[in-house]
Amino acid sequence: MGENDDSDIIEHHVEEEMEKKAGVRGLSSPRLDSLSPSEREGHSSTQSSHRLLAYSDALISIIATVMILPVAHTKVEDNEELRESVQLLLTTKIAVYLMTFLIVTVAWAAHIRLFQVIAHIDDCLALLNLACMMLITFLPYTFSLMATFPENVLGILLFCGCVMVIGVIQSVIVLYAFSRPFLLNEQIQISENLTYYKHHILQVIMRVPIMCFFASIFSFIFFQLSYVLLAIIIFLPYISQSLKWCRSKAIGQVEETPDSMLFYTYLPNEPLSKERVEAFSDGVYAIVATLLILDICEDNVPDPAVVQKQFGGSLVAALQAYGPEYLAYFGSFATVGLLWFVHHSLFLHVTKTTRFMGLLNTFSLAFVGGLPLAYQLTHEFPRNSQNELEAIQISCVIVFFAGIFQLSIWVVALYNEQETLHPYVWYGGREHVFMLAKLALYPCVALGTFFLSCILSKFSTSIFHLMEITVPFAFLVLRLLVRIGLALLRFIFCPNRSDLTTVVDDEADETRVPFNAVVT
Amino acid sequence: MGENDDSDIIEHHVEEEMEKKAGVRGLSSPRLDSLSPSEREGHSSTQSSHRLLAYSDALISIIATVMILPVAHTKVEDNEELRESVQLLLTTKIAVYLMTFLIVTVAWAAHIRLFQVIAHIDDCLALLNLACMMLITFLPYTFSLMATFPENVLGILLFCGCVMVIGVIQSVIVLYAFSRPFLLNEQIQISENLTYYKHHILQVIMRVPIMCFFASIFSFIFFQLSYVLLAIIIFLPYISQSLKWCRSKAIGQVEETPDSMLFYTYLPNEPLSKERVEAFSDGVYAIVATLLILDICEDNVPDPAVVQKQFGGSLVAALQAYGPEYLAYFGSFATVGLLWFVHHSLFLHVTKTTRFMGLLNTFSLAFVGGLPLAYQLTHEFPRNSQNELEAIQISCVIVFFAGIFQLSIWVVALYNEQETLHPYVWYGGREHVFMLAKLALYPCVALGTFFLSCILSKFSTSIFHLMEITVPFAFLVLRLLVRIGLALLRFIFCPNRSDLTTVVDDEADETRVPFNAVVT
Repeated sequence: MGENDDSDIIEHHVEEEMEKKAGVRGLSSPRLDSLSPSEREGHSSTQSSHRLLAYSDALISIIATVMILPVAHTKVEDNEELRESVQLLLTTKIAVYLMTFLIVTVAWAAHIRLFQVIAHIDDCLALLNLACMMLITFLPYTFSLMATFPENVLGILLFCGCVMVIGVIQSVIVLYAFSRPFLLNEQIQISENLTYYKHHILQVIMRVPIMCFFASIFSFIFFQLSYVLLAIIIFLPYISQSLKWCRSKAIGQVEETPDSMLFYTYLPNEPLSKERVEAFSDGVYAIVATLLILDICEDNVPDPAVVQKQFGGSLVAALQAYGPEYLAYFGSFATVGLLWFVHHSLFLHVTKTTRFMGLLNTFSLAFVGGLPLAYQLTHEFPRNSQNELEAIQISCVIVFFAGIFQLSIWVVALYNEQETLHPYVWYGGREHVFMLAKLALYPCVALGTFFLSCILSKFSTSIFHLMEITVPFAFLVLRLLVRIGLALLRFIFCPNRSDLTTVVDDEADETRVPFNAVVT
Repeated sequence: MGENDDSDIIEHHVEEEMEKKAGVRGLSSPRLDSLSPSEREGHSSTQSSHRLLAYSDALISIIATVMILPVAHTKVEDNEELRESVQLLLTTKIAVYLMTFLIVTVAWAAHIRLFQVIAHIDDCLALLNLACMMLITFLPYTFSLMATFPENVLGILLFCGCVMVIGVIQSVIVLYAFSRPFLLNEQIQISENLTYYKHHILQVIMRVPIMCFFASIFSFIFFQLSYVLLAIIIFLPYISQSLKWCRSKAIGQVEETPDSMLFYTYLPNEPLSKERVEAFSDGVYAIVATLLILDICEDNVPDPAVVQKQFGGSLVAALQAYGPEYLAYFGSFATVGLLWFVHHSLFLHVTKTTRFMGLLNTFSLAFVGGLPLAYQLTHEFPRNSQNELEAIQISCVIVFFAGIFQLSIWVVALYNEQETLHPYVWYGGREHVFMLAKLALYPCVALGTFFLSCILSKFSTSIFHLMEITVPFAFLVLRLLVRIGLALLRFIFCPNRSDLTTVVDDEADETRVPFNAVVT
């Protein structure tokens, strides 16, 4: 492809330019002069880090969703009430899933920060990163050991051990990159206080392994304290940030550290590589969408002997028993696919991702992860049972929260639209209403289905299936619907509106008001 | 990030330019004049297809590797000989895995071709593509039904039904895109014979569903014929291409269809989007690397009650039983990670991917998929048993083939190096020898381990573990090793070479000779 050729040539040109620059700087900077010729030759191996990061994102997204599998494979019995079994699940496996998701995304955010500082890689960094990945993929297992045996020291030790080694590897990566400044981000490369940056970054990175070290020591003495320490590690940035915010509100002054502001600040509006947020989300959506087909492919191919014996050789009859599973698969694939579609549309118009948006995105993805299971449950119980109704309501709640967190990403982005959004979707931009309709469709539909299934509990299954079938078509004609709404508006020239679009538009006004108030 | 901002702004600028162009063409072309204003307004929703394709690649790579799970979860009994159980596996599940992999990659290649023609998407195309993906992800299941019940019509019907619907959706996508030419590839957009392209592409796409239609009809009459037809569908491009090649050799003339050459030609040097080959490979490598940890997370967290009863409450003792599984995980993660690293290094220097390179890449990936299982087997048998030896040898064979197919991608690329490779790695370029050493390391080591384990069968496990541990370090110091080799060469100034690099270099000369002979 012509385009690919170009981009690749550009990539290589970048390398060459980097080399030249590094060479020029080498003449002035004593650091580079001290390099041996063979070390300086090493430049030729400088590579764009794009693919390494894509691979890391793929690995991390798989690992983040892996703990949903034990939840998925827990059999819910027909005879007991769903409420009880769900409570049982909630207390253990779902909690483990959510915590693992959170821990892995914290590791992922740390990885993003690291590679926002390091813009180019070489073979050595690529191999160090793979070692780091190997340990990150082991984290969920150590965490689930810790959750299953909360009073055993081993789980804590393994978890802390992994985190410490990850921290040490990341420090080595930072030291290595700062010893070859041509690998660094341009902004840092041209900065005067390279050493200050190095110390600041190392300090932030080493904070976590050091706290883990203490946690692992305390585990021998008083293991409850270890858990407190570990919780502090995970929530540290949020705690310190909210403390800072409180202090700044109380004292009334805002601290500005202009040069160190860019990296490792843990401010809610610290930039987070948009490309990587997309790649990670794509990975999670792709795995979640295929979760059910993985099980179907493995478990639902009937045994020829069984078919012969139980169904008189009729494969159709044998497969009919699996009917609900196929339905659940297609339903969950469609829902996850459409949620991805909304996410894709949203991020098409996002020009800068901030940490806070990333956090909301994580919440949305955590709910998406539970979706296939909820869908699977809806088909597992006898028709019109209390269990079925509850399974459908749980599905609606999950879809609602997945959608509402996507919507909130947009609301947060609008709060600072000049920086984070494309003018098309600014308040009053020509795509604004359409975008809002897209984002609001799933939460509204889920809410509607939820309440309808409460009122018309007899028809809950039909309502749910109707929802599954109509939503894709609603997305297909959404632009038309919005356009009709806007045309009607223009035609009527007055604010009393009557259709879907305008309901949505009113909502927008409502959500806008507090933000306008805050801004002004 | 500044970079992201820029690229996004560029993307949006592209959209605006596209709109302008389409608008200008709209004045001259009757096709666009006939569009209603609302349809032309639709331009504003034109989007870069990058993320849609990344998501599709992620889905397809998961689906391609899914049939390895039934293989993975087949328990190999300790008391019977591995040879027998492997033969049992080989005949059924492994064959299903390999065939599914092939079928899914064929669907993936068709998807690439389609989106090389369509460069931009809108919401409607994104939704159609999701529908297409849903059916592609269902293909492995229908195929495994077909394989389990070869004489039952249902499997064939389901498979053919899926393929037909996929074909119809793809045709709709093509028709939709040609009705809005601003969505098309620039080369096609500026081409004179748009209608010719449309008919050519539709013809190629519809060929498959039509043949499937006949296959499904024949399945009622004489189902063996259906299988022949399906096999023809999968291998059709290769068969027709080799027939064409034979004819051109026999008659001595080469047909050139300059304008239609670019798309849907099925020539071995037809370009295949490099970005997508990378994304698909990343997906497969990521899933394969984490296959074992998925099982570990799900199955190897011991039950507290069991630990209390069987191990006297000692978690360490309970976990020791799983020791081999951890070892297998780390070993396979490292090997898959390093094979990814080699793949990454190779594609960094590839500027254009051809269909033939894509095919070799598929073969390499299919072997990579089997690697975790082979590694898992190596630790499942009692020490120094015949089974263990064979498991180790199978692992070596798999690693060897995964590596050798990567090497062959490079050899094929060298055959046409002016077009496909960056000058750095051309024959004689400064990275040439280093690249060759990287690509040859795994095949050489695997071959060495294989023969060593044949000779010193008593120490096979130690040799295998030694190999696992040393290879990552060999990659770390590979540049140094190559440099020492080259320095020695320069020092000696004569062709009798004595170390690793030169052995590798000789190999390069050997592989070069026939190709040079062909070229000249």
